[in-house]
Amino acid sequence: MRAVVLLSGGIDSSTTLAVARYRGYDPCCLTILYGQKHSREIESAKSIARHLGASDHVIMELPVQLFSCSSLTMKGDIPQRMGPDEVPGEGAIPNTYVPGRNLVFLSLACSWAESIGAKAVFIGATSVDYSGYPDCRREFLESFERTAALATRIGTEGAPIRIEAPLLEMDKAAIIKLGYELGVDLSLTWSCYRGGKKACGRCDSCMYRLKGFKEASLNDPIHYEEMI
Amino acid sequence: MRAVVLLSGGIDSSTTLAVARYRGYDPCCLTILYGQKHSREIESAKSIARHLGASDHVIMELPVQLFSCSSLTMKGDIPQRMGPDEVPGEGAIPNTYVPGRNLVFLSLACSWAESIGAKAVFIGATSVDYSGYPDCRREFLESFERTAALATRIGTEGAPIRIEAPLLEMDKAAIIKLGYELGVDLSLTWSCYRGGKKACGRCDSCMYRLKGFKEASLNDPIHYEEMI
Repeated sequence: MRAVVLLSGGIDSSTTLAVARYRGYDPCCLTILYGQKHSREIESAKSIARHLGASDHVIMELPVQLFSCSSLTMKGDIPQRMGPDEVPGEGAIPNTYVPGRNLVFLSLACSWAESIGAKAVFIGATSVDYSGYPDCRREFLESFERTAALATRIGTEGAPIRIEAPLLEMDKAAIIKLGYELGVDLSLTWSCYRGGKKACGRCDSCMYRLKGFKEASLNDPIHYEEMI
Repeated sequence: MRAVVLLSGGIDSSTTLAVARYRGYDPCCLTILYGQKHSREIESAKSIARHLGASDHVIMELPVQLFSCSSLTMKGDIPQRMGPDEVPGEGAIPNTYVPGRNLVFLSLACSWAESIGAKAVFIGATSVDYSGYPDCRREFLESFERTAALATRIGTEGAPIRIEAPLLEMDKAAIIKLGYELGVDLSLTWSCYRGGKKACGRCDSCMYRLKGFKEASLNDPIHYEEMI
C-alpha cells in the first residue's frame, strides 16, 4: 500500500519515512524546494530516499515569491534567535515561519497521493520544539484532513487520504532515538539552516539537533564548522 | 487592499479578476501551470492581467507527476464526453477532474497572500456547469477557509484570509454577461482544452463556452477551427 512521505532530508522527515516503512507502506517521497538556503538538504533527501528504499522520489521547486516574507527564504543571514535551552514563548511564531508552508506541502502531497493511489500522506511535523508554528498543530492537521476529503474524488467516495504525523508529540531527543532504533543512518541527514559545507552549529535548527542528540545520549555523526 | 486572484486565462477567472477590481481590491494574479495541454491559456492570462490592471502576476509550474491521472495532463486526446446540451449526472466526476487541484491552487494562493499582505484570495470556481468537481463546492471552499486560518500566522492572529468565489452559483451565460458588463475583453480569453492555434469548438470547455454565449445572446469574439 502506497503512502506519500514529505521528505526534506532532515532528521524529522527521515524518521517519518522510516516509520512509514515500518508500518508496511510502500513510500513515495516528495521533496519541495522553496528557495530556502538549505538546498544542501536536497542531497540528503536523495540519499535518505535511496537508503530507506523509497519506490519513487519527486523533487519540485516552488517560485521564491510565494514565501517571500520568511527569513528562511529572504536574502541576508538567518537571525540567531535563541539558544538550545531557551524555549519559544507560548504563542510566539518564530521568524523562520514560512507562510502556510505545511498547507501547501500537504496539498501537493494529497494531489500526488490521489494520482498514484496512495492511501496516506506522512509529514514529520512536530508541535514540541517549534510550538510556535501554527501549521504544526494537531488542530490544523485534523482540519486539513477534513478539507482534503472534501476536495478529492476518493474523499467524496468515502476513502479519504489519511494525514499521518507520527512525530507530532515527540521532542527532538525522542525523534532521534526513534530514528536510530528504526535504522535511519543519521549521518545522511541535514538540519542546518545555513547552506555551508558543514553544519554551522549555531542556527536554531543546529541547536535543536545538538540538544536532541545530547538528551538522547547519542553522538551526532555529522560534522560541524566548529565544535560546540 | 491587495487580493490574490487565481487566473487561468479563461472566462471564469478573468471575470473573477474583474470582480476583484470592481470591489476595490488591488489584484495580484497567480497562474499555475500543471502540464496541461492548454498552455495557450498562459498567453491569455498574461494579456488579461495587463488588460485588467493587475499589479503583479506570478506564473509557476508544477511537476506533471502531481496530477498524473487526469485526462487534462495525460498523453493522448481529450475525451469528448458530452454535448453542449447534456448535463453531468448528479455526483458524476468528469474525467477532466484533476486530483485536488483547487486544494493545491488555493494553498499556493494563500501562502502568497500572507507573504504580500493580501486579505483575500479570489477563485473562479463555479459549481453549476461542472457540478461533478468535488473541489468546486461551497462545502469544500468553506472548509478550506477554516483550515487556512489555522495554518497561517494572520489566521491565528484573528485576521484570516477570505476565500472569495463570486461565480460559485452562476452558470456560464451569467458569467459571460457579468464579464461583459465589467468590461472584460472576452476576445483575450481562452477556454479550449486542446492546445491548437484556434479553439476546437468540440471539447467540453468549448461546448460550455459556446452554449454560454448563445444563452447570453452575445457573440463569442474568438475564432474556432470550424464554425459550429
